[in-house]
Amino acid sequence: MQIRDIGEIKLIQRLTKNLRLDRTVIKGPGDDAAVIEWTRDKYMLLTCDMLVEDVHFSRKRATPFEIGWKALGRSLSDIAAMGGIPRYAVVSAGIDPALRVSVADGIFKGIRSLADKFGVNIVGGDVTASKKIVIDITVVGEAGKKALATRSGARPGDLIFVTGSVGGSIKGRHLNFIPRVNEARRLVTRFKVSSMIDITDGLELDLWRIVKASGVGAKVFKDAVPLSKAAVSFDRAMRDGEDFELLFTMSKADAGRFLRAKPGRIKTPVTYIGQIMPKKYGYRLASASGEEKRLGAEGYLHF
Amino acid sequence: MQIRDIGEIKLIQRLTKNLRLDRTVIKGPGDDAAVIEWTRDKYMLLTCDMLVEDVHFSRKRATPFEIGWKALGRSLSDIAAMGGIPRYAVVSAGIDPALRVSVADGIFKGIRSLADKFGVNIVGGDVTASKKIVIDITVVGEAGKKALATRSGARPGDLIFVTGSVGGSIKGRHLNFIPRVNEARRLVTRFKVSSMIDITDGLELDLWRIVKASGVGAKVFKDAVPLSKAAVSFDRAMRDGEDFELLFTMSKADAGRFLRAKPGRIKTPVTYIGQIMPKKYGYRLASASGEEKRLGAEGYLHF
Repeated sequence: MQIRDIGEIKLIQRLTKNLRLDRTVIKGPGDDAAVIEWTRDKYMLLTCDMLVEDVHFSRKRATPFEIGWKALGRSLSDIAAMGGIPRYAVVSAGIDPALRVSVADGIFKGIRSLADKFGVNIVGGDVTASKKIVIDITVVGEAGKKALATRSGARPGDLIFVTGSVGGSIKGRHLNFIPRVNEARRLVTRFKVSSMIDITDGLELDLWRIVKASGVGAKVFKDAVPLSKAAVSFDRAMRDGEDFELLFTMSKADAGRFLRAKPGRIKTPVTYIGQIMPKKYGYRLASASGEEKRLGAEGYLHF
Repeated sequence: MQIRDIGEIKLIQRLTKNLRLDRTVIKGPGDDAAVIEWTRDKYMLLTCDMLVEDVHFSRKRATPFEIGWKALGRSLSDIAAMGGIPRYAVVSAGIDPALRVSVADGIFKGIRSLADKFGVNIVGGDVTASKKIVIDITVVGEAGKKALATRSGARPGDLIFVTGSVGGSIKGRHLNFIPRVNEARRLVTRFKVSSMIDITDGLELDLWRIVKASGVGAKVFKDAVPLSKAAVSFDRAMRDGEDFELLFTMSKADAGRFLRAKPGRIKTPVTYIGQIMPKKYGYRLASASGEEKRLGAEGYLHF
């Protein structure tokens, strides 16, 4: 049996089954970042993301700066999705010894520019030879114990929101997006989110992850989903990877406060796109005409 | 200019120049692990190591279990070299979708076996497609503030020690070594080391790193260096990579206490191989006949 036969989701389930975790681990694999006891009022967040040449980027279409920016941006987006503040990063880089030094310079310039933008300390790394460029960045973040957002807190009746717009990120945005760290922080500290995730594998699959982790159902209002200008079609936009937008839920009361708080809200557009439903409802797309269609774990996966 | 023209050491210096680090970072790049403020009496250690197929291992000669074991072992060895306890790990894996699932199973079994041996929590990871297998593991460790060991504390007159034996690791030991976590802990808590590093790029280069970071010189007694049975020759053993032994220094007084403490010491053999000298002495190898030869930054490097 090949890895592609069981697919990414089942592979991860298989590899992480029955892990031995001690009591300091609040959340192991299965959310955007691991959650670990740190101090009395803070958790430590831990996340890693590997970027591989000709899988996540092509050297023909991405500049070295963009490759570095994206490599760190993905991990920062994970920390954001937990409502955390990114603090420290270590960078592993596999690079072809025959590459020009300016390529390595450019990649690290991209990483460092984004790190400086969010006050992230690059504290270490590893450099090794590799035919294809591979960048893996681990970020340590912190989250207030009362401000932690996970995938598992959505409750029937909650409203579903998304920041920005979705789809067509491959046309450029996946290389220069600004991770929604500040937006997420404002959401978790000034308001109250019941669940949150960043969209990396498409809205449909990432909302499925919230639905699954929370043990609920969900209804998405087809006409409400904000499509980006680069999106090819609604169906494609729902499954395009790497939007790096926040997908989150709020109780009706909290959502009301959030929607009324116009100036104190966040500058980034936030759109109400659906509602969390009881589990037995399932996971569906509703169009204005009242038609409903099943949604599922479909999106951008590597295997 | 290509990366192989400037070499690994210069490349890292270049990429990490003028990093912006805040006051919570006690040590950034340049030691076996980064050191960060954690609690009143503990530091956080952070290290990552990337393992690439056909660079660090060959699928023809290493079993999947050994690949996983080695991938985590390298990072644990770094934590050991700081006198720390490994606590949490995140695993990024690039795997060919056409590989058999049993290969991924085997790699993770190797990682998990070693993690369980040392009580390390595997809290997260990332899986992606990659033609060559790439495993990057980041480990978070902790170190008592009074028990931290770095590369920079060696002083003239200190004695130089090495655990186990060196050379010829490529014949097998690099795939199944047990990282010297327990030995290092005993050294830093029961005794007092002035500097420590793990040997990854050969004794000559790694001792050079202590010499350089501490601003001192060193004399290695040629006839004292314990060669492993797998070592091809003295010269090769000094430059062979991946011994994963501890190389450390102690003041004369501390070394005396250590050497006398027979039963309470450590079971692993420890050999006295040289002496830290004033900087102006340089870095040299002395043979029994009194002949001296310059040593330098020579060893196993990727570029």
